[in-house]
Amino acid sequence: MALKTLSAEKAAALDKELMSDGAFSLDQLMELAGLSVSQAVYKFHPPGKGKKVLVACGPGNNGGDGLVAARHLKMYGYEPTMYYPKRPKNELYERLTKQLQDFEIAFTEDFPSALKSTDLVVDAIFGFSFSGAVREPFAEVIEAMETTKTPVLAVDAPSSWNIGSGPPESGPGKNFQPNALISLTAAKPLVKWYKGRHFVGGRFLSKAMAEKYDLDAPAYQGVDQIVEVPLQDQKL
Amino acid sequence: MALKTLSAEKAAALDKELMSDGAFSLDQLMELAGLSVSQAVYKFHPPGKGKKVLVACGPGNNGGDGLVAARHLKMYGYEPTMYYPKRPKNELYERLTKQLQDFEIAFTEDFPSALKSTDLVVDAIFGFSFSGAVREPFAEVIEAMETTKTPVLAVDAPSSWNIGSGPPESGPGKNFQPNALISLTAAKPLVKWYKGRHFVGGRFLSKAMAEKYDLDAPAYQGVDQIVEVPLQDQKL
Repeated sequence: MALKTLSAEKAAALDKELMSDGAFSLDQLMELAGLSVSQAVYKFHPPGKGKKVLVACGPGNNGGDGLVAARHLKMYGYEPTMYYPKRPKNELYERLTKQLQDFEIAFTEDFPSALKSTDLVVDAIFGFSFSGAVREPFAEVIEAMETTKTPVLAVDAPSSWNIGSGPPESGPGKNFQPNALISLTAAKPLVKWYKGRHFVGGRFLSKAMAEKYDLDAPAYQGVDQIVEVPLQDQKL
Repeated sequence: MALKTLSAEKAAALDKELMSDGAFSLDQLMELAGLSVSQAVYKFHPPGKGKKVLVACGPGNNGGDGLVAARHLKMYGYEPTMYYPKRPKNELYERLTKQLQDFEIAFTEDFPSALKSTDLVVDAIFGFSFSGAVREPFAEVIEAMETTKTPVLAVDAPSSWNIGSGPPESGPGKNFQPNALISLTAAKPLVKWYKGRHFVGGRFLSKAMAEKYDLDAPAYQGVDQIVEVPLQDQKL
């Protein structure tokens, strides 16, 4: 069974519709998305495997999901460290950052050093709105995630990958294969090139919205906000 | 071991602090609170026991928690019906209501009739800011919850109860004993008079905030947003 995917254009349209006709606020959606990310981390890498989690956040909403996830991870008993080098002036991101400071979560400006002593990396740098070339400081960070032996869980997309056409042909990310990926709302076409464990999260689509965007309803269990999708389901 | 409780005044101060210094938005807190309520429903009354849930929402934030919970319950496979007779002009509540409509959740104006065919009632009428006398249409609703054989789960407080001194000495709610209660953030002093199953939810307090308000950190497990508190822990 092929997994239905959501192109970058459709993902942007769906987000926009959720926040207009759908009456969701970005605060609300980001809280649920980040909660899903934290649950995927727990499933992929439970605290018994090591509690240190380095969360790399980009300047947009993918980074915001990482900020929310880190707060929940702290509540679950992890020890997150944030790498958040580019912070646009944005009221929501500023509040999410303040929350992390109140939770006594450390921030680092030195990703390579932090990488040496972490048990897991969360890649929340770029999401479905990314395209084009990776610039510093993220080029260096993506190269480090590409070569590290430490497991990496990517949020919505392995950073540097094109949402439609997968890994870049050259430059940072060319050989980047995270060990886990959580697709938010629905998988993006890039999953065709992806080989690790795959989770779907973001349990907030009405049946009408899922039908309108021609998406499968993931087989969520109980109160779980995420579900693991077997690899054979994602061959396209 | 006595469970530490939070007075109505301190609960209001804590809420205010979370949304000022704490940098949380009401959207965010209500989403997490309502999610906790939905998880308590799932634990207390899993869908196998009957999927019909009648959610009675009051005009304030307690009602808002009920609105959020209903959306999550629908995602879990329940069939919620909303009783929401008093709707103040409030942008957040209006959006939460629109979300429920998009999820094809029914609204009723006839609580007694809906009560006859439901499997569970969620009492999200009044929370920690309630005091004084109950007015219609809620007096009738509380009397119906007081006498029904259908299980009732109350959000933060059995509606009509005084937060500090428990059940009213006369009038609606005098003999109201819900079968389950979920305390949000922390139990209120009224739990001293409460005899049913007790859950605590609202997993968003930093250690510093819990200490400042002299609260116990509930023993949440894994990614759970709620925890059941054994009865012997709530004797004061």
